[in-house]
Amino acid sequence: MLNALDKKLLSTVADLHDVPQGAYSIRKDGESLLINSIENIVISPKKDRPGIDIKVKPGTKNQAVHIPVIISMSGIKEVVYNTIEIGEDADILLVAGCGIHNPGSKESRHDGVHEIIIGKNAKLRYVEKHYGEGTGEGKRVLNPKTVIEVHENGTGEFEMVQIEGVDDTHRITEAKLHERARLIMTEKLMTHQDQKARSDVVVELLGKGSSVKVVSRSVAKGSSLQVFQPRVVAKAEGKGHVECDSIIMDSGKIRSVPEIWAEHPLAELTHEAAIGKIAGEQIIKLMSLGLTEEEAVRAVIEGFLR
Amino acid sequence: MLNALDKKLLSTVADLHDVPQGAYSIRKDGESLLINSIENIVISPKKDRPGIDIKVKPGTKNQAVHIPVIISMSGIKEVVYNTIEIGEDADILLVAGCGIHNPGSKESRHDGVHEIIIGKNAKLRYVEKHYGEGTGEGKRVLNPKTVIEVHENGTGEFEMVQIEGVDDTHRITEAKLHERARLIMTEKLMTHQDQKARSDVVVELLGKGSSVKVVSRSVAKGSSLQVFQPRVVAKAEGKGHVECDSIIMDSGKIRSVPEIWAEHPLAELTHEAAIGKIAGEQIIKLMSLGLTEEEAVRAVIEGFLR
Repeated sequence: MLNALDKKLLSTVADLHDVPQGAYSIRKDGESLLINSIENIVISPKKDRPGIDIKVKPGTKNQAVHIPVIISMSGIKEVVYNTIEIGEDADILLVAGCGIHNPGSKESRHDGVHEIIIGKNAKLRYVEKHYGEGTGEGKRVLNPKTVIEVHENGTGEFEMVQIEGVDDTHRITEAKLHERARLIMTEKLMTHQDQKARSDVVVELLGKGSSVKVVSRSVAKGSSLQVFQPRVVAKAEGKGHVECDSIIMDSGKIRSVPEIWAEHPLAELTHEAAIGKIAGEQIIKLMSLGLTEEEAVRAVIEGFLR
Repeated sequence: MLNALDKKLLSTVADLHDVPQGAYSIRKDGESLLINSIENIVISPKKDRPGIDIKVKPGTKNQAVHIPVIISMSGIKEVVYNTIEIGEDADILLVAGCGIHNPGSKESRHDGVHEIIIGKNAKLRYVEKHYGEGTGEGKRVLNPKTVIEVHENGTGEFEMVQIEGVDDTHRITEAKLHERARLIMTEKLMTHQDQKARSDVVVELLGKGSSVKVVSRSVAKGSSLQVFQPRVVAKAEGKGHVECDSIIMDSGKIRSVPEIWAEHPLAELTHEAAIGKIAGEQIIKLMSLGLTEEEAVRAVIEGFLR
């Protein structure tokens, strides 16, 4: 059911070498390919539109859910809606991700809309990798929209990575944090050639004691362009920190526009950002250890995005 | 010619106790009151619209130019255009500033548009203080627009302070920096009650080796609102740093949206910002030395804005 190309894409975006254990949903070329539920984690197709509902029962622990999407054809365009509910006190790893192999001349595009609700005292670790490849001229486009709500004392840890090969992306992430809710969001982006990436993040601190840390790391190579606009709005006594670090190479361009907005007098908000070229000393040091310049640059970039 | 109120306003906004030495222009209640040129610094009224031209001859050193504006009536509204040219190799202090005493119920407003050209190897230190007072209901409004161009190896040091009593301000500052030009811009703002302040800054690094540092410090008391949008755009191999620190008290609100935009691969841009309440430890320490809480808060705020 999974051919060699499918397996390669699944391995790249979800670290899977075959159909996984536990609960999963694998989507291929615009259709649901495989769905598997387990006792505590029920995955069911949406009735009114493409996508799935995932319900994790309260108290479920030490389970991983895989929901990768792969596209292996040219000209596929889909909008998929997934709703993920993590019950109270649960503690779950969710592995999403999308890989596009576009062999032809038409654009292939996946727009994934994720609505994620993390219950009281629950914890979700979310990993999402995006990747594109293909010998044709057809563009690989990924526009993820992620809407997160973290309830009282819940925790969300989001790691979102665009590995390479995505020609165009507009990433939208929105989060609302209630009392003592925590969110750590790390976004890592690499662009090449004339690729474009835009990421808009809005986090609202709505409950007392809520906190968020947004970390963005990016590398723009070729003549690619990246625009970041992470915003943290504190409407309650909460803490927020935004940090953006970017490396530009070749003639890449990066705009970074973080915003902190304190609407509550006891809010504490900070941000920092830096855009610069790759550190020359590191390259020289690695070259003195025997690496070629190209190998040294690759090692530094990999370390930066790790 | 200067009454007691005039002298009080001049002292507050320009540290002057009477008509100054050297070149000056004093504007009062919508009209030019006094103008004085010296050999190397010629001040002349504009012919086509309100305002003055200031020409500082090349090589002029160790001179101060005072150009304060005072308004002592209710209902004065003026837009004033000043053009300031600093000749090559000159080194000058320019003291601007505007004080409004509004005794009545009508709005009094001064919109000052400053065009400032700093010549090759020249240096300008620019100090501008804004202040409002008055027993009436009439608003005190100040909208300064400052357009700066710094030529090769020139230096601009700008200190812009809104002391207090300004009900509404929209500050616009634009700067273009050529080869090896330097700009240090410090903005300090205090707002009370339901006052509003907005500051937009755009600095373009156009020449190789140009550099800018933008520092913003602000305190929002009462239910006042402040919005900051400092931007640095690097179109050449230059360095830029933006830092914004804000204290909120009572139910003040602050939005900080700095932007760094690298259009050149060798640009180095950084920013950092923090919004928070006044540091509790400092208050406690000062109170343990015998200050009342009110005195301690005042001392910390004054230190922060110094």
